[in-house]
Amino acid sequence: MLPLEQIPTLADIRETHGAIAHMIHRTPVLTCNSIDELTGAKVYFKCENFQKIGAFKMRGASSASLRLSEEEKKRGLTTHSSGNHAQAVALSAKLLGVPAFIVMPENAPAIKKAGVKSYGGNIITCESTIEARERTLEKVRAETGATFIHPYDDYNVIAGQATAVKELIEDAPPLDIVVSPIGGGGLMSGTALCAKYLQPELKVFGAEPELVNDAYRSFRSGTMQFNTRIDTIADGLRTNLGEKTFPIIKSHVDDIFTASEEGIVKAMRLIWERMKIIVESSCSVPLAAMLENPDAFAGKKVGIILTGGNVDLGALPFK
Amino acid sequence: MLPLEQIPTLADIRETHGAIAHMIHRTPVLTCNSIDELTGAKVYFKCENFQKIGAFKMRGASSASLRLSEEEKKRGLTTHSSGNHAQAVALSAKLLGVPAFIVMPENAPAIKKAGVKSYGGNIITCESTIEARERTLEKVRAETGATFIHPYDDYNVIAGQATAVKELIEDAPPLDIVVSPIGGGGLMSGTALCAKYLQPELKVFGAEPELVNDAYRSFRSGTMQFNTRIDTIADGLRTNLGEKTFPIIKSHVDDIFTASEEGIVKAMRLIWERMKIIVESSCSVPLAAMLENPDAFAGKKVGIILTGGNVDLGALPFK
Repeated sequence: MLPLEQIPTLADIRETHGAIAHMIHRTPVLTCNSIDELTGAKVYFKCENFQKIGAFKMRGASSASLRLSEEEKKRGLTTHSSGNHAQAVALSAKLLGVPAFIVMPENAPAIKKAGVKSYGGNIITCESTIEARERTLEKVRAETGATFIHPYDDYNVIAGQATAVKELIEDAPPLDIVVSPIGGGGLMSGTALCAKYLQPELKVFGAEPELVNDAYRSFRSGTMQFNTRIDTIADGLRTNLGEKTFPIIKSHVDDIFTASEEGIVKAMRLIWERMKIIVESSCSVPLAAMLENPDAFAGKKVGIILTGGNVDLGALPFK
Repeated sequence: MLPLEQIPTLADIRETHGAIAHMIHRTPVLTCNSIDELTGAKVYFKCENFQKIGAFKMRGASSASLRLSEEEKKRGLTTHSSGNHAQAVALSAKLLGVPAFIVMPENAPAIKKAGVKSYGGNIITCESTIEARERTLEKVRAETGATFIHPYDDYNVIAGQATAVKELIEDAPPLDIVVSPIGGGGLMSGTALCAKYLQPELKVFGAEPELVNDAYRSFRSGTMQFNTRIDTIADGLRTNLGEKTFPIIKSHVDDIFTASEEGIVKAMRLIWERMKIIVESSCSVPLAAMLENPDAFAGKKVGIILTGGNVDLGALPFK
C-alpha cells in the first residue's frame, strides 16, 4: 500500500481493511436487552475492547506502519503516548519484525509500560510535559531514523480507524445512527467518512465529555476550539482535534453530543454490570450521551463503537 | 418433558437442551493467547457469564420448571437463595408466566434483591440462618402450593446444567480436559455425565477453593465430608455436595484440584485484564487450579466453564 496524502476514499479504506486483516481481530457486535430498555433504542456495540492490545488503536497503527517503505520499516517505528496508541505501535512493530521506540512520560502507569515492554517495545522516558515529549521524540527520530506514527492526525491512521465502522455496518442490521467518542478525532473522522461512503443516509454522531468539549465547540463555531481543562475521567478523550481530523468532522459528522462526568461513570457501570464486559471510561461516553439526550436516539437502531478495555482495576470509579 | 427420577441419560440431556433453548442463550466460547502462554495449555472458556441472569443457573432452573405439570406451574415456583439461583428461578417463572416466591436472607445484597424484583419475583425475607430459610420456605410452600426448585440436588436441575458442557464440546475443537468449579455439585455432576457420554476419554476435573474443600475430601475418602468453614472469596462455592450430586461426581469425575484464595483473586484479575470480561470469583477457581497445578494441564486442550458474571463492582478484591 502507498501512503495516503489525501482524505481516504472508500477504495483506500477497503484496501486498508484487507491489508491489516492479519494484524487485527474482527471484533464481535454485541447487544443487551436491558440497555435497549433503558435507552428506548436498539443498540449494537462494536467491541473494540476485544481488539488486539485491547483497543481500536491497533487498526490505525497497523495501517500506518504497513504503508512505510521497506527501508523505513527497517529503521523502526516511534511515537509518544502514555496510552493505547503506544501499545498499538509496539505490537505493529513486533508483527513487522522491526524495532519500536516509545516515548512515555515518567509518570505513565506501570501497567501501560509493562504492556509496551511485553510487545518488545523500547521505552524512552521523559518529563510529563508535551514539550518534553515532543523534544524527546525528535531526538529519537534523529538518532534512529524511526518513523513517527501519529496517534490520530494522519490519513493513514484515519483509514485504519475507519475499518471498525466498516465491520460494524457489515455485521449489524441496517443502522439509523452510529456514535463514536471524540478525542483527537482519528476514530471519529474515519467513522464519519466510511459511514457516509457506505450508507449516506446514516446519521453520524460524536460524543464528548462536557469538560473537554473542544470538538463540540469547534463543530458549532466552525473554527478550531481548544480544551481549557483536561480533568475528565475519560482519559482517552482529553486531546484536541487535529488539522486533518477537524475538517473531516466538520463536513461529515451530523451532530455532537456531550455527557457529564457522572453520566460517563453511570454508563460505564451499566456496560460492566449488564453486558459483563470491561470497557474504559472513554468508551462509555457515547452511551452516556445517549442516556442524557434520549430524544435523539429513541426508537432508532444505534451502532456504538466501544473503543477499548484497558483499565487499572486497582483504581476504579465505582462505589 | 417428564420429571427425571433417575440420573439423566444422554437422551434426557439432549431433550432438555432442545426444550430450554428458548429460555437460554447459547453462550460463546472464547480463547486468550496470553492466558495460553501463562498456562502452557490451550484454554477454551465457555462464557456462562453472558448467560441470561448472568450465570449458568438459568439452565437448571429452566429445565426443572419446564418439567412441572400445568397445574404445578400455575401455583408457581419457590426457592431460597441469596445468589444466582434466585434470579434464575424468578426469570424462569416470568418466562412461564407464573409467580415466583423467593426466600432471601435479610442480609442479602441489595443488588441481588433488585435482580429478583426486576424479573417480577416476590421476595420473602427471613433471618440469615439455614434453619430460618428452610422454615420460611416450608411456610411459603404450604401457603402458595408453589414447587421448590432446588439449586443443585435435583436430577432435573443437573440435566439443565449439563447442557453447558454439551455446547462447549460442540463448539470447541476436540478437548482433552474439561474443568468445572464445585459448589453443591449441580454443574459438576451435569458436566461429568454429559462429557463422559459424549467423549468417554475426555478427562473431567473439578476445581474447589482450598478453604471449602468438601468435594476434594469427599472424592478422596469416598464418603461425604462437610465444610467446617465458609470464608472463601468464592461465595458461590461455599455449599456442601448433595446426596444426588456426590455419587455422580464420585463415579464420573477423574480428579479434583484445589486453589488458594490468593490464586483465585489472581486468576480472576487475569481474566478481567486479559480477556476484558467480567467473571465472578467463583468462576475463576478452575483457572486458579490450573495455574497452581500446571503439570496436569500442560500441552492439553482444556475447556473451562466460566460460571457467572454477577459481581458487586463496589466491593472488588483488586488493589
